[in-house]
Amino acid sequence: MLDKFINNPGEWLKGKGPYSDVVISSRIRLARNLREFLFPVKLPVKSRADVVNKIDKVVKEAKFSKPLFKFNMESMDILDRHFLLERHLASLEFINNPKGRALFLSKDETISIMVNEEDHLRLQVIKSGFDLPLVWSIINNIDECLAEHLDFAFSADIGFLTSCPTNTGTGMRASVMVHLPGLIMTKRINKVLNLITKLSFTARGLFGEGTQALGNFFQISNQVTLGLSEQEIIDSLRNIISQLREQELGARKYLLDKQGPAIEDKIWRSYGILKSARLIDSGETLQHLSLLRLGVDLGIIKGITRAMLDYLFIIIQPAHLQKLQGRVLNVRERDFIRAALLREKLGG
Amino acid sequence: MLDKFINNPGEWLKGKGPYSDVVISSRIRLARNLREFLFPVKLPVKSRADVVNKIDKVVKEAKFSKPLFKFNMESMDILDRHFLLERHLASLEFINNPKGRALFLSKDETISIMVNEEDHLRLQVIKSGFDLPLVWSIINNIDECLAEHLDFAFSADIGFLTSCPTNTGTGMRASVMVHLPGLIMTKRINKVLNLITKLSFTARGLFGEGTQALGNFFQISNQVTLGLSEQEIIDSLRNIISQLREQELGARKYLLDKQGPAIEDKIWRSYGILKSARLIDSGETLQHLSLLRLGVDLGIIKGITRAMLDYLFIIIQPAHLQKLQGRVLNVRERDFIRAALLREKLGG
Repeated sequence: MLDKFINNPGEWLKGKGPYSDVVISSRIRLARNLREFLFPVKLPVKSRADVVNKIDKVVKEAKFSKPLFKFNMESMDILDRHFLLERHLASLEFINNPKGRALFLSKDETISIMVNEEDHLRLQVIKSGFDLPLVWSIINNIDECLAEHLDFAFSADIGFLTSCPTNTGTGMRASVMVHLPGLIMTKRINKVLNLITKLSFTARGLFGEGTQALGNFFQISNQVTLGLSEQEIIDSLRNIISQLREQELGARKYLLDKQGPAIEDKIWRSYGILKSARLIDSGETLQHLSLLRLGVDLGIIKGITRAMLDYLFIIIQPAHLQKLQGRVLNVRERDFIRAALLREKLGG
Repeated sequence: MLDKFINNPGEWLKGKGPYSDVVISSRIRLARNLREFLFPVKLPVKSRADVVNKIDKVVKEAKFSKPLFKFNMESMDILDRHFLLERHLASLEFINNPKGRALFLSKDETISIMVNEEDHLRLQVIKSGFDLPLVWSIINNIDECLAEHLDFAFSADIGFLTSCPTNTGTGMRASVMVHLPGLIMTKRINKVLNLITKLSFTARGLFGEGTQALGNFFQISNQVTLGLSEQEIIDSLRNIISQLREQELGARKYLLDKQGPAIEDKIWRSYGILKSARLIDSGETLQHLSLLRLGVDLGIIKGITRAMLDYLFIIIQPAHLQKLQGRVLNVRERDFIRAALLREKLGG
């Protein structure tokens, strides 16, 4: 079943949607817990199946806009689990300890629910481009739909109760993945990120908490979920991303005006290396793909779509490569196959 | 007149001839002086014209296999003079002080004579590939032909007399330009060059004395001209180059056997950068062209001839680029035009 996903990029990798020159995707996740069960951190492992079964039943009965498929994490091999991580559909903690955990997933990957991660439910909706209102309306529908059948742990004073107090309240984290090569190349990035932090938002790397800003990607998300309404969080984030995009586009314009030939040279060289290399690791690939995306965004490189690039960002990851090959690969083999894949996709 | 040369690579850039996988060209030059004049270092500048006129007359009368064209260095602009330097047809000292100096040159650049460099005559014959006997037979014919009409400064005890004692005797320097990327990549180069030095031969960079080993090229030549016959010098050099080629081919085989994918990767990346860059300096270009030539020699890269590469090694030099453009270019402009030229020639 999971194999069907490998060759079809999720909707959020379509490189479409508003502001797609800077914004890759918009995502909201909601943390929810069932009142009748101990929270996952306290719940005996053998009881986790009861939570999964309960949610499975509700998902089947609920009238979601898209059907969700259930994946039992325990019976899934490590490669498939890493595939989900690379696809931004599961967390590292979730895939590393699969016992009694399940994932529900729509075919286009827009909707997913991790069951028995830190909380009983972690709903996620992700779309390409910058469209938090749309994402919110989808996830809010699902949440309301589930709430009709499930009794969520909720306090009238505080809001939704969660395992970690940082999620208590709305239980919401809204995050937007942005591509900021201009701010990095003009060395303005730290100033901008500091400002974001002061506004109680946070910037993380490509794979969330604790990961590096590979390929000039950042996930901007809210730090506070308590004492604010969902709409307030979304509005603040929209505001920040709008300004961030202005800053990034300004930086790109500055680079083109002041260092045009040097920037074009960097971009074309990255393109040349991606089309030529016979061995390439994922870190270097992300860096070159980032410059190539900048080249496409600036109209310097023609004939390559953002969708292709955003898809490449994902499939050059280790688990994706191994899924594509249908076998476990060592680092050297991956570097070899990654290079071959890039040449194939970019016409090298 | 000189403009006719720019678009036609000299014979020695044809990438042909024996051992052309390692040997770019074979060259012999003979230093000769006229008994009736003071040597150039002592000769008053105003008398230099007398030497030029004398030789011009003889060249016109002599029955050389190829006609020689005369270039007055003083009336030649600096760009054209640098063009001759890059083309290995004149020395740095010769072009920097053009007063009273002249160059005689055959259309295919095989034969050249610098007049009033350090010695009255510096005859040079250069051919592609490894063919010192052929080069010797050509230059020996010219030398004999000239000797019929000119009275060379010669001592029965010592041989030909020259301005610098290191050239006295045969007045001959035989040099072979070799491409040694394998020995450099396997870090065996210093050992091999030390051995050559012990045998009284010397290894210089691409543009002769005092220049760096750019692009993995070396000129191997004799240090001693006194007390040995021309044939002995040529035989020793032939011997050394044969062994050097074996060493280089051994190193290439070792690299392919032990680090095949990594070497292929390096070669393809160099090719990719040459076909993609929008700004590139000559040092980096030589390095990538060197790897590309290795790729062609190893059969990894198809569809590019050695002749094309050997020609590119020359025309990416500053004066060549400026001659091609027909105007003086600053460094930045050269980097830009060099990159465009490489893309055009390599189908980038």
